[in-house]
Amino acid sequence: MSQEQLRPVRVGLLGIGTVGGGTFTVLKRNQEEIRRRAGRGIEVTMVADLNTALAQQVVGDAAQIVSDARAVIANPDVDVVVELIGGYGIAKALVLEAIAAGKHVVTANKALLAVHGTEIFAAARAKGVIVAFEAAVAGGIPIIKALREGLTANQIQWVAGIINGTTNFILSEMRDKGLDFDVVLKEAQRLGYAEADPTFDIEGVDAAHKATLLSAIAFGIPVQFDKAHVEGITQLSATDIKYAEQLGYRIKLLGIARRRDNGVELRTHPTLVPMRRLIANVEGAMNAVLVQGDAVGTTMYYGKGAGSEPTASAVVADLVDIARLLDAAPAARVPYLAFQPDEMSTLPILPLDEVITSFYLRLRVADKAGVLAKITGILAEQGISIDAVIQREADEVSGEGGNQTDLIILTHDTSEGGMNKALAAMQALPTVLAPIVRVRKEELA
Amino acid sequence: MSQEQLRPVRVGLLGIGTVGGGTFTVLKRNQEEIRRRAGRGIEVTMVADLNTALAQQVVGDAAQIVSDARAVIANPDVDVVVELIGGYGIAKALVLEAIAAGKHVVTANKALLAVHGTEIFAAARAKGVIVAFEAAVAGGIPIIKALREGLTANQIQWVAGIINGTTNFILSEMRDKGLDFDVVLKEAQRLGYAEADPTFDIEGVDAAHKATLLSAIAFGIPVQFDKAHVEGITQLSATDIKYAEQLGYRIKLLGIARRRDNGVELRTHPTLVPMRRLIANVEGAMNAVLVQGDAVGTTMYYGKGAGSEPTASAVVADLVDIARLLDAAPAARVPYLAFQPDEMSTLPILPLDEVITSFYLRLRVADKAGVLAKITGILAEQGISIDAVIQREADEVSGEGGNQTDLIILTHDTSEGGMNKALAAMQALPTVLAPIVRVRKEELA
Repeated sequence: MSQEQLRPVRVGLLGIGTVGGGTFTVLKRNQEEIRRRAGRGIEVTMVADLNTALAQQVVGDAAQIVSDARAVIANPDVDVVVELIGGYGIAKALVLEAIAAGKHVVTANKALLAVHGTEIFAAARAKGVIVAFEAAVAGGIPIIKALREGLTANQIQWVAGIINGTTNFILSEMRDKGLDFDVVLKEAQRLGYAEADPTFDIEGVDAAHKATLLSAIAFGIPVQFDKAHVEGITQLSATDIKYAEQLGYRIKLLGIARRRDNGVELRTHPTLVPMRRLIANVEGAMNAVLVQGDAVGTTMYYGKGAGSEPTASAVVADLVDIARLLDAAPAARVPYLAFQPDEMSTLPILPLDEVITSFYLRLRVADKAGVLAKITGILAEQGISIDAVIQREADEVSGEGGNQTDLIILTHDTSEGGMNKALAAMQALPTVLAPIVRVRKEELA
Repeated sequence: MSQEQLRPVRVGLLGIGTVGGGTFTVLKRNQEEIRRRAGRGIEVTMVADLNTALAQQVVGDAAQIVSDARAVIANPDVDVVVELIGGYGIAKALVLEAIAAGKHVVTANKALLAVHGTEIFAAARAKGVIVAFEAAVAGGIPIIKALREGLTANQIQWVAGIINGTTNFILSEMRDKGLDFDVVLKEAQRLGYAEADPTFDIEGVDAAHKATLLSAIAFGIPVQFDKAHVEGITQLSATDIKYAEQLGYRIKLLGIARRRDNGVELRTHPTLVPMRRLIANVEGAMNAVLVQGDAVGTTMYYGKGAGSEPTASAVVADLVDIARLLDAAPAARVPYLAFQPDEMSTLPILPLDEVITSFYLRLRVADKAGVLAKITGILAEQGISIDAVIQREADEVSGEGGNQTDLIILTHDTSEGGMNKALAAMQALPTVLAPIVRVRKEELA
């Protein structure tokens, strides 16, 4: 039963930046260990990067270096193309061309797959090649594998994750130091935790891309980023983080995909999470994903969600999977989106108005009799029941003469649509003196 | 590219108790979802249990029921035998017979694999069949898959896990309520968290079985339960849990496998863990496993480690893997112990004396001048450096006249052998008035 020596898998890297460099380094450093696991070697034979000098510096003479990615795709001696360029533009063209050339593809590009996944997976299926993307969500944490393979026994009920390290770092700092968003963002940029243009991170777009991929593999629905609700952390104040803390909650930016009877909720937004949950204690740039299945209950996956070698760990794991399946029929593979392509679900993404959550509300109100009764009356009209209320003593609100106060309300579950009606009615009250702050809340139990 | 309809995988269950019943129930309830993922159905066609009445009650007419497990193994229409009997005796014979009959095997039996795994995997390899065992460690948490497939890029440095729910429940209760072991054990038995004969759990044997499996797949070494250090929680007192808490630590029963230059540490024992680590906050009967890899850094996997459907979740995931690979060549499979059988490591399990950890020590000493100097002198002689000392005020120790006190010492890393010498010397001091308590400590960073 001794195994004959299989030829190495030959890999072409597109992009030798942070993740590309890490992938090259890890494959080289651990080549023996990886070969002993995979049953065959995995060799980077070609690297494409516009910055050939950088590539030369990282790769040396170990692989052929080119500036033209298409030379990698055209090389018949490359089995797998690893796309680490990012973005929707040239990366999309190259991935489709690699597929057309019969190459297997590994990518860390969540934006590309969340937006153009349907087209890419269809092309790959037609050509009989693998498109693997463990590195696209939560860096080195094998969450794609857990969902696609580890939890196949389950009807998945929901997935909720801290899947953007930049925003989790900022929120951790805001809470720790009591600082507002703008101040902490600047610090995060200085420390390299946030990019010069942090829009995709802080506006929730990156997390929503990843949540879109998680929703697809959890429920067997197509990727539908265009129907995702995307909300970032730029509006959060230190005040709300502090009040949440007093109520036993932490605020985290969560990407959430939840199955309802009539569809799937797909949403990314700041969320109050009970402090006693492990995920509420995931700090700094770390990632964690909770998955609730009907058989397994709640499971959690935690680790570094970004960075050179953590992300490379996921890229290389995909390469090992491909190495094992290189000579096997497509039926032996795990389907791109966990379910067989002919067996996808038509469950729609629900419009935001139909999403069910509970809420944290902060109202700046005139400190006089009857205000609370008016507000709770409006909530009752919409069938929204109240879990907890904190009415601050007026004199606790500094420097405003004592005739205003903060009213904090936690609600039970309600529809977003109902809450919007209630918010409009409350906002119209003359005793409500500022825009009402609303943050969604999830018990995650 | 439309897939032809593949025939279902036919499963024979040996044992229809807690996990067997759960497996049957989950396969039935989620059969459509599972088929849509696996690309073919998974059907329980035969069930063997000595209690055929119970089997009848669970299974009804859905499968053939027999009292003789060998009838399942002999049935040519069974593709996969699921062994859920447990123990080393009849289970071992049946697994080997199933392999000899050319059946793939799925088992939740950690005891069997930790002790007889080498023989079983060799037989399976010779026969070309799969032996899958996700359910053997940490119930529904896909930790075997994470280690064998998700982290293949890494040289694994260590694995440390709360992998026995009974003992974690007992330790959580001891801490919460300040009660001693014996009292909480009785409560756990009453609540069904501990068995009538809890020996395997409370003496650490069950956790050590699982740690043995984790060490094998993390480092590519054979299973060697006979070389594992096994220590349970029966000697722990509420006093030490309280002191640990004051020092910023929780005490958890950890199964640990750590790679050193000259070998592998394989040990299960109560361990002080810094309170700020997520794993220190895993409470009740939950399980969690930390894995440290050289590329990915630290990752954690959390969920229910036991119970009917959580364990069934893992059994069924193995069945889906087998369903996908049923028609593929053995080269497409993940090796039993993560590394190709011809590529296993010869790294030895280190004797306990060579294990490196830090320690918590509690000494009952006479409350007089010079005692601390003597004790720290002995530690220094063995090259053991001290991280922290708490010397209690004598009057804080109740009802003993004030002439005794507790001395708590946290050390830095040292060898077990060195510590044993120091302990013997300290114990011999006339001012040390009771057996010294020693608990190992891990920073897990």
